[in-house]
Amino acid sequence: MLERYTREEMGRIWTRENRFGKMLEVEKAVAQAQGEMGLIPSGAAQAIQKKADFQLKNILENEKRTRHDVTAFVQEVASHVGGSEGAYVHWGLTSSDVLDSALALLIRDASRVLQSSFSQLKKVLSEQSEKYADALCCGRTHGVVAEPVTFGFKLAGFLSELQRNEKRVFQAVQQAMVGKVSGAVGAYGTLPPELEKKVCEMLGLSVEPVSTQVIPRDRHAEIVLSLAMTASGLERLATEIRHLQRSEVAEVFEGFTSGQTGSSAMPHMNNPIYSDNASGLSRLIRSYVTPALENTVLWHERDISHSSVERIMFPSVFILCDFALNRMAEVIQNLHVDTDRMLENLKSSKGQVFSSLLLTLLVQKGMSRSSAYELIQSLSFSLQSGESLQNKLQENKTVLKYLSQEEIKEKFSLEKRKNQIASQVKMILKTIK
Amino acid sequence: MLERYTREEMGRIWTRENRFGKMLEVEKAVAQAQGEMGLIPSGAAQAIQKKADFQLKNILENEKRTRHDVTAFVQEVASHVGGSEGAYVHWGLTSSDVLDSALALLIRDASRVLQSSFSQLKKVLSEQSEKYADALCCGRTHGVVAEPVTFGFKLAGFLSELQRNEKRVFQAVQQAMVGKVSGAVGAYGTLPPELEKKVCEMLGLSVEPVSTQVIPRDRHAEIVLSLAMTASGLERLATEIRHLQRSEVAEVFEGFTSGQTGSSAMPHMNNPIYSDNASGLSRLIRSYVTPALENTVLWHERDISHSSVERIMFPSVFILCDFALNRMAEVIQNLHVDTDRMLENLKSSKGQVFSSLLLTLLVQKGMSRSSAYELIQSLSFSLQSGESLQNKLQENKTVLKYLSQEEIKEKFSLEKRKNQIASQVKMILKTIK
Amino acid sequence: MLERYTREEMGRIWTRENRFGKMLEVEKAVAQAQGEMGLIPSGAAQAIQKKADFQLKNILENEKRTRHDVTAFVQEVASHVGGSEGAYVHWGLTSSDVLDSALALLIRDASRVLQSSFSQLKKVLSEQSEKYADALCCGRTHGVVAEPVTFGFKLAGFLSELQRNEKRVFQAVQQAMVGKVSGAVGAYGTLPPELEKKVCEMLGLSVEPVSTQVIPRDRHAEIVLSLAMTASGLERLATEIRHLQRSEVAEVFEGFTSGQTGSSAMPHMNNPIYSDNASGLSRLIRSYVTPALENTVLWHERDISHSSVERIMFPSVFILCDFALNRMAEVIQNLHVDTDRMLENLKSSKGQVFSSLLLTLLVQKGMSRSSAYELIQSLSFSLQSGESLQNKLQENKTVLKYLSQEEIKEKFSLEKRKNQIASQVKMILKTIK
Amino acid sequence: MLERYTREEMGRIWTRENRFGKMLEVEKAVAQAQGEMGLIPSGAAQAIQKKADFQLKNILENEKRTRHDVTAFVQEVASHVGGSEGAYVHWGLTSSDVLDSALALLIRDASRVLQSSFSQLKKVLSEQSEKYADALCCGRTHGVVAEPVTFGFKLAGFLSELQRNEKRVFQAVQQAMVGKVSGAVGAYGTLPPELEKKVCEMLGLSVEPVSTQVIPRDRHAEIVLSLAMTASGLERLATEIRHLQRSEVAEVFEGFTSGQTGSSAMPHMNNPIYSDNASGLSRLIRSYVTPALENTVLWHERDISHSSVERIMFPSVFILCDFALNRMAEVIQNLHVDTDRMLENLKSSKGQVFSSLLLTLLVQKGMSRSSAYELIQSLSFSLQSGESLQNKLQENKTVLKYLSQEEIKEKFSLEKRKNQIASQVKMILKTIK
Repeated sequence: MLERYTREEMGRIWTRENRFGKMLEVEKAVAQAQGEMGLIPSGAAQAIQKKADFQLKNILENEKRTRHDVTAFVQEVASHVGGSEGAYVHWGLTSSDVLDSALALLIRDASRVLQSSFSQLKKVLSEQSEKYADALCCGRTHGVVAEPVTFGFKLAGFLSELQRNEKRVFQAVQQAMVGKVSGAVGAYGTLPPELEKKVCEMLGLSVEPVSTQVIPRDRHAEIVLSLAMTASGLERLATEIRHLQRSEVAEVFEGFTSGQTGSSAMPHMNNPIYSDNASGLSRLIRSYVTPALENTVLWHERDISHSSVERIMFPSVFILCDFALNRMAEVIQNLHVDTDRMLENLKSSKGQVFSSLLLTLLVQKGMSRSSAYELIQSLSFSLQSGESLQNKLQENKTVLKYLSQEEIKEKFSLEKRKNQIASQVKMILKTIK
Repeated sequence: MLERYTREEMGRIWTRENRFGKMLEVEKAVAQAQGEMGLIPSGAAQAIQKKADFQLKNILENEKRTRHDVTAFVQEVASHVGGSEGAYVHWGLTSSDVLDSALALLIRDASRVLQSSFSQLKKVLSEQSEKYADALCCGRTHGVVAEPVTFGFKLAGFLSELQRNEKRVFQAVQQAMVGKVSGAVGAYGTLPPELEKKVCEMLGLSVEPVSTQVIPRDRHAEIVLSLAMTASGLERLATEIRHLQRSEVAEVFEGFTSGQTGSSAMPHMNNPIYSDNASGLSRLIRSYVTPALENTVLWHERDISHSSVERIMFPSVFILCDFALNRMAEVIQNLHVDTDRMLENLKSSKGQVFSSLLLTLLVQKGMSRSSAYELIQSLSFSLQSGESLQNKLQENKTVLKYLSQEEIKEKFSLEKRKNQIASQVKMILKTIK
Repeated sequence: MLERYTREEMGRIWTRENRFGKMLEVEKAVAQAQGEMGLIPSGAAQAIQKKADFQLKNILENEKRTRHDVTAFVQEVASHVGGSEGAYVHWGLTSSDVLDSALALLIRDASRVLQSSFSQLKKVLSEQSEKYADALCCGRTHGVVAEPVTFGFKLAGFLSELQRNEKRVFQAVQQAMVGKVSGAVGAYGTLPPELEKKVCEMLGLSVEPVSTQVIPRDRHAEIVLSLAMTASGLERLATEIRHLQRSEVAEVFEGFTSGQTGSSAMPHMNNPIYSDNASGLSRLIRSYVTPALENTVLWHERDISHSSVERIMFPSVFILCDFALNRMAEVIQNLHVDTDRMLENLKSSKGQVFSSLLLTLLVQKGMSRSSAYELIQSLSFSLQSGESLQNKLQENKTVLKYLSQEEIKEKFSLEKRKNQIASQVKMILKTIK
Repeated sequence: MLERYTREEMGRIWTRENRFGKMLEVEKAVAQAQGEMGLIPSGAAQAIQKKADFQLKNILENEKRTRHDVTAFVQEVASHVGGSEGAYVHWGLTSSDVLDSALALLIRDASRVLQSSFSQLKKVLSEQSEKYADALCCGRTHGVVAEPVTFGFKLAGFLSELQRNEKRVFQAVQQAMVGKVSGAVGAYGTLPPELEKKVCEMLGLSVEPVSTQVIPRDRHAEIVLSLAMTASGLERLATEIRHLQRSEVAEVFEGFTSGQTGSSAMPHMNNPIYSDNASGLSRLIRSYVTPALENTVLWHERDISHSSVERIMFPSVFILCDFALNRMAEVIQNLHVDTDRMLENLKSSKGQVFSSLLLTLLVQKGMSRSSAYELIQSLSFSLQSGESLQNKLQENKTVLKYLSQEEIKEKFSLEKRKNQIASQVKMILKTIK
């Protein structure tokens, strides 16, 4: 069912063919290094370089007998190399030397695809943030209109968070770019540390400083956790869109194309389905955090319980995160933004969005904080249709003891606030780029 | 990657074809009921009964345009019915009427497959429990040898837990066997409650008493939670096998077949790979608990964020749980049990497994509890190779003030304990069957 | 920090004093039964009945030495009983006999408090549902106005879900009402099954059919899972309130009392703080699901890793769930409901909330489903300020080929829908009560 | 119940007094900066510096009325300052300016305590790793004896993992060392960015580049995730100890003190209770990952749902993680290591721990890989009591075609392996220090 969310570039990485392909890459690197170090005959090393190959179906066939996918793979590869040279395929290695080093290579490739997806979303967030830097709209806490912001300011916040998450993902990937050729239980029983160093260099990986049978799983957990954080950030963005598209707010709309239908029952519906979808995907991605952490607690030098988890977890988290990043990029890029409605919603607060400014001003003019607070609260709570906080203050005798009409009026300026926030957005975008 | 764990019977249920097939079943039932109630022309009802059908590829093609899988499906089905009668396909329905009622049907089918998997594991646990009812072995707390049990007694505990989990799963499935034909937002705007009642009866479902746009997702969460409990029970069983197969314990072994390999590096390895595997699968199954619970918190009458989760979650939890049940049934059925080794391990405790019996006896004979405790503790902790707690007690002057040699000897009887536990096991198995 | 959320009645249950008190209750029941069965001298049994007691500080002092809270407890209790009779305290028992049976008693008491909290929330939901049975408001999918419901209908849905969750909690508690007096590793080495039966009867518990050192932890996990489901249901309710109180919707408001402040900066703020708070608590309660499930996988006859989890988990889930139930009861009871605004919001849909009715009608009159759908969709999407779907249809030549002005008008009746839904609500409430 | 796990140094940080104390520190810094910038009268700034204070009980009393802890706090502080100057307490601020900046200060203090706990565990791991660098013992995969390692090598692996986790924690803390004085919705409506910069400098924090009402919660989630990774690493260590202390392995023992009791029933028990305990605590710590991630998805510029979570989550994760680090340090420091038993267990593998060496050798000598594998596997599986793989090979005619007696014998050298691993350990420890 994952296929629905699989973009081709990312999907190809997580096929069985490609996984065995990366394992082959590791086996070949090992053979080459062993040849160069004189651990195996150079003829064998060359034969493996040239002829080592596999047919997926043969591996699957072998596995029915061996009940072990790596020995099934090794038998198949050795049969391609043939002769006495084939015996040197996987010489001195334990399965996890190949599996874990290959996994690092898969993760590297997957992270490169992800990199471009991050970039795409960053790009559209940045563009839209700039475009709407001065599009005044409501800032809301608890869903209640609080003070003005601009739509570009909102997006700048999401961009900033996305950048942090991108950094987390690539730090996590970086620390997992280690290989291991330390043999069974990681103790270099059959092969010297020098070989490991050489092979890892060839593969562009660092050496795991203390491996067991495997590369320790905390490294892999960090990756999953960083993707879960990314997913949660995407959910926050999706949730913002869903809120802003709700009928009573109606400030933004996901693109809607000709022929599209919003509901099989109600022809009038136009829904934020992509953002809803991304919210769900975020839950899924996040759900892998616990098995990823549980996976780190393997018994002694390793049991194999992590394997079934990873077989499903790694393709899933990378594919889903890649999809969700691209989905949200599409949403933000095609977003219909109704700046008139934004302003209208802001104005419908009857000036209450300036209540904090008036509170600070009254205190400055000598009113006690609690009296000022209570007065503004009471005026706000009693506002009727057609009234505004500004008028109420301008008509209030107590207030007028402290403030002139002009001073009150001056504070209720959306224009001033707009310019200030817009320049703030520009400064932020400059820093981020 | 799920395919690796998909048994055919369960896999077929969760294909796209079968999902649309169940949706078709619902559409046909609705049309039939609408015809009988005179809500739509009986000709249309009959035409839908006869001709309604679909080609998966056409639905997928339609969906590219509609961006809505149900409208894509309805268009395809209507085109098979054709003419003016085709217009009555999905008449008055909202998508979730069809989706959620069909999901209940899918869950019913999946739970039937699961039922037989539960039965199979129960059967082999019961058989082995009976077979090894009197196979004495160590009971261990904290991994430390505590008192004797029998291997059959251990298995009876797992059987009892499995039974509870089976009950939980089927209670959960039962409460989710509800349908919904209440239309948009669940308020019967286009169709009367009587139709819903009729359709649900035809489908063998109860009526959801208060639906929104959907059947509330707490019902679905309960299913996932019950499967997660089952998975945790399987992990406990798998963990027991893994412990008993460790080299120093060596009491049981998973079956090992000709040609099988335990390690690509170390030819001597014979590992509990299936139990390791089931432990990992349990983590995966359990991981769906959080998204399932988060899914219940939909906005207002529903947002669609649950959909992406369920698309992956439902096939996954059912397929993985089914696989894990069968895997553990296979493990238990083919288990090599070394009853000699069990006895040997028990005896290597040097009689300490009777320490609690001696404590109670000394107290009965008038020794203070703390003195008796300290004495036995001190004798136990100082046991040397070749010594036994029994000898130490029989040589201890303080002890001999309270107990005769005969009384001491009598308590150290494995035979008596064996018979007592074996009869306990038989009683348990009788109750469970 | 939990104290902030601890209601007295529930808090008292989870004190250390009360925990040891319940353990004492178990020890006394065991001694009484042992006396009656002649396992211990009747004088000892009576002395324990009469004198067994403890001072918390002494237990804590003992524990520094024993590093085992139960042996510390037994030593303290025995010292109160004194003499040779004190030696019979805990005679033949293992710690978990006492701990787990006492835990069942604590859970029973806690579930009784919870029962009254469930009842209170059910009561206010039911009352408000009845009161607002005909208060028309928007039903929304994806946050977008879909079709009319009433506020009472919404609440009836929450009531129905709460009832299911209440049932789950009490089923879960019920199946955990088991005791265990089977001694070390659960194999009745020191005490006969008859004693266990007798003691459990005295405590009002069933007998665990196959215990290990402990009562299997799946029973306890089921409780935590049922509370997590309840919490998620409460979060759905809290989320509904939070949505309805947002400024642009403004249909309901949590009670706001004199002197209350919504924000330290902005005097005008009136926020759904209690519902926000309950949403957070729900996340906390739900978070215990994973450790509760992991706890079931104890090693062999038990390790003690579950203990540190349960020490914090049980008080937390019960206290937080109790608090959240009461908090939401308070919110619903004191809710300000603005039915005028509800109607206003509904009307602002410009009649689009009837789009599905018109679609079904046009199909009935012979229009093809897809033509009808496209026509209504297109009219809806092009509605300008001041226009309505009804007018647009009444002016549309294609539509008028199928429908008369009267037929169109008839469908756009909020009154009819209101009565229908209100009577539906009444029927639901009758069923639920 | 958390108090059981609270070490004094860490506990003090998370008291209510200390939390309000840090808030006071922020308020004072703001007032000072406002005074210096001429935003408030310098007399007011000085009065706040001098007199601002609070009594916890007064805040709690105020809060009953305000239902808002920050306004309750501000009223109390202002009353200490008194006069017209008190009105400038919290001038222009929103609550989260104070709360979130103060939270950063609390986290900084808590991370310093954690730092010393990390150091302590690292120190004892390092010392024991060095001490046991050449203590040969079994390396095990799937719990099955695989190849030799040394106990010091095992510990070096845990040390290496702990170092990674320490780095993760301090990276996470580092990125969360940001403050915010940007006012309501983070848009600098009442105060200029320059003030924020000045205040953050005074507090030793960086400025949050784009805040909303709050500092974005992904920063806080990263901390919780890093602690959960640490906890999982501790669980891996605890699990190793638990395995090695099981009766059949008996290679290490947690310290056991005079008067300690292992079981209330069985005087002979000596259990790894601290490691069991740490395993449970790890589950608890890990459980906060999901609420921490869910907390990041706040609505718009913020709702307050994160607050109830954090109130419990932050003290819990820091206190539990601190406790678990120290508990494991104590375990490792006091560990009884039975190196004789380690060697004995290793030898009981009958030389099979060298099977991979023989496989590689036979291949080198020209045997095909699969024949060599099958031969060694078959010899290993048929080993009887008293036999060894070495003898079997030395008696095998096929083997002797490829290898001399001397060549075979040479490979079975524990001494050689010991020296090689010990020098590996020394190299690792050098790198880590």
